[in-house]
Amino acid sequence: MLDRTIYLDHSATTPVDARVAMAMTRSVTEVYGNPSSVHRFGQQARAAVDRARREVSALVNAKPNEIIFTSGGTEANNLAIRGLCEASVQHGRHLITSAIEHPSIRGVCELLTQRGWEITRLPVYENGIVRLDDVRDALRPDTVLVTVMLANNEIGTIQPIAEIGAFIREKRAAGQRHLFLHTDAVQAAGRISLNVDELGCDLLSLSAHKLYAPKGVGALYVRRGVRLVGQNIGGHQERERRAGTENVPAIVAFGEAAKLAREELHERVVHDSALRDRFETKVQAQIADVVMNGDRKQRLPHLSNISFRFIEGEGLLINLDLQGVAVSTGSACSSGTLEPSPVIRALGVDDEIARGSIRFSFGKDNTEAEVDYVVDILAHAVERLRTLSPLMRPMAIS
Amino acid sequence: MLDRTIYLDHSATTPVDARVAMAMTRSVTEVYGNPSSVHRFGQQARAAVDRARREVSALVNAKPNEIIFTSGGTEANNLAIRGLCEASVQHGRHLITSAIEHPSIRGVCELLTQRGWEITRLPVYENGIVRLDDVRDALRPDTVLVTVMLANNEIGTIQPIAEIGAFIREKRAAGQRHLFLHTDAVQAAGRISLNVDELGCDLLSLSAHKLYAPKGVGALYVRRGVRLVGQNIGGHQERERRAGTENVPAIVAFGEAAKLAREELHERVVHDSALRDRFETKVQAQIADVVMNGDRKQRLPHLSNISFRFIEGEGLLINLDLQGVAVSTGSACSSGTLEPSPVIRALGVDDEIARGSIRFSFGKDNTEAEVDYVVDILAHAVERLRTLSPLMRPMAIS
Repeated sequence: MLDRTIYLDHSATTPVDARVAMAMTRSVTEVYGNPSSVHRFGQQARAAVDRARREVSALVNAKPNEIIFTSGGTEANNLAIRGLCEASVQHGRHLITSAIEHPSIRGVCELLTQRGWEITRLPVYENGIVRLDDVRDALRPDTVLVTVMLANNEIGTIQPIAEIGAFIREKRAAGQRHLFLHTDAVQAAGRISLNVDELGCDLLSLSAHKLYAPKGVGALYVRRGVRLVGQNIGGHQERERRAGTENVPAIVAFGEAAKLAREELHERVVHDSALRDRFETKVQAQIADVVMNGDRKQRLPHLSNISFRFIEGEGLLINLDLQGVAVSTGSACSSGTLEPSPVIRALGVDDEIARGSIRFSFGKDNTEAEVDYVVDILAHAVERLRTLSPLMRPMAIS
Repeated sequence: MLDRTIYLDHSATTPVDARVAMAMTRSVTEVYGNPSSVHRFGQQARAAVDRARREVSALVNAKPNEIIFTSGGTEANNLAIRGLCEASVQHGRHLITSAIEHPSIRGVCELLTQRGWEITRLPVYENGIVRLDDVRDALRPDTVLVTVMLANNEIGTIQPIAEIGAFIREKRAAGQRHLFLHTDAVQAAGRISLNVDELGCDLLSLSAHKLYAPKGVGALYVRRGVRLVGQNIGGHQERERRAGTENVPAIVAFGEAAKLAREELHERVVHDSALRDRFETKVQAQIADVVMNGDRKQRLPHLSNISFRFIEGEGLLINLDLQGVAVSTGSACSSGTLEPSPVIRALGVDDEIARGSIRFSFGKDNTEAEVDYVVDILAHAVERLRTLSPLMRPMAIS
């Protein structure tokens, strides 16, 4: 192994905070009852889940009974879309989404299409942001759901959910009573402040492992009164909307991480954005022919998506990995495919630029020294790969 | 709190083994990559998941690529039934199950009924065991799935899955090619030895937290070649059949627990059954008017389900809990309802006996002293409750 490894892939997953790991370990060894059990062991586990529910609800300014714990962000997105659409089918079969959603949203939309639903995919333009006017134009009397992510997982752009939410509420007040708004906030949570009332959303997805908690747990916020058909069927857990014994230790860890994310949000934003800006400034100074993907302002503070022209992102990723630096091309959930990222393509850039894109995502434990080290390695790697690249144009070599 | 608490509810959930907790804690703090990531952090997590997959597959004598990790037993059961039925719908819409399945199976069967499926529920008779002849009689040319649990969660009876499996294979060989067998082995795993080839099943559900591993993870064995429609949709994880970032630490813990369950099976069976037998002998000697529910031989080694006549199980449970002893009425997944357990009722006993049933389930860390202590407490509690009971018949009081 290398003597130095640097993790710049916090959008794929985050290391578990030591305080969160401690809370989880305590729960695993001490609180082993089944929350559905009537006896004290069960009630102790139930109380631990309830405490965590309060922390997670506070993270998004919801009420505890509006939080359904799931096995992660993908299940939360599945439950939101499938659950709402199955509950709303008598009111319409039209759904509006964006062109840059996470594979779990894209996949469910494809499934719904097979089942006779019509899907409108909003474009995002070169800045990677949907426009309210397009939502307006797409809305039909039989639209039952608008699902647009709060922040994109590959380029970090923040979508105008509050504006869309205000519009949806207006429409609902005007009589389209069965129209709802879901937002996938998996990438936004812990990075920007979240308030379901300000956003005006009815459903919001979260994943614990993006905010320094372990994998295996997520949550769906469901505004009081919104009907949802449960997808995992069986016991009475989660107010009949998500059966199965609660993942107590992971839920406890999620609660602790949510509390820390709320308390430390400001310092994390300041820290991450300083690193990200330092990184981008140095990259632009030291490496030619780079394209910064996505809006420069309306974006998450910790993420930088850069295309290095004339080379393949995959080759660069592997090159960096060999030197101990972890980054990604596209999202972890769609890696393994050789197609250029659909998110980058949705920006309207050509395939060559899409193929050369790399996501650098910073976290609270990264340092300035790491950034400087990575930029040096990156500059050399890009130079070397370009020398070998068949994509490199003769004029650029000279 | 009491100075002494005794946990006799291992069928609801088990305390986490210290060795398993250690493996999990190590994974949480050290192996934080996303298994879908290409870089070394991701590959390290991928390797950890693969190691666990080998251990879990070995527990049931399957191949590693026949194991799909899920968020628990309920999801495994949902995926098995819904996934198989959705994949088989062109071959028939008839399913055979038993009258004593877990709520997750019962719930999915009700959903299928709403969708036009026909369900045959096999009776279990007074011993709590289904009969092969009834499976034979129920089978139709449009039957695509038989789902019968391997061991019941409330009374511990072991079902003749190997016989049913042999019959199903025979039928398949004779031309009914799209007929499959699922068994819910959640309660059986870690209690009796499991071999998918000997059982002849095509799908088998497992839950980690029943075998001294943490909650939040389970698995579905899917025999090579069996088609299944994924239910959680999105990324490419679990061979396209269960999307979502893998719950790495819980999967690692599950692997460790599966290894221990395999290695220590014999001693656990000897230990648990000795305690269970001691318990039952003492209960029968010290308490009058008890009914032992379920077959006396063909059952799990650690579980005792007893009806105490003339009293309510719920009252007895609370009485025991106040004295630090944790037991259950029915299953944890259906607790909170006031109806008598459908499992006990399926034995054909009258409601009074069904309402007075309590499940005692022993585990590897229980001791003889605990058993003796519990029997004493139990005898006093039963006596006191009977004195107060309106159900107590005058002749019995005299």
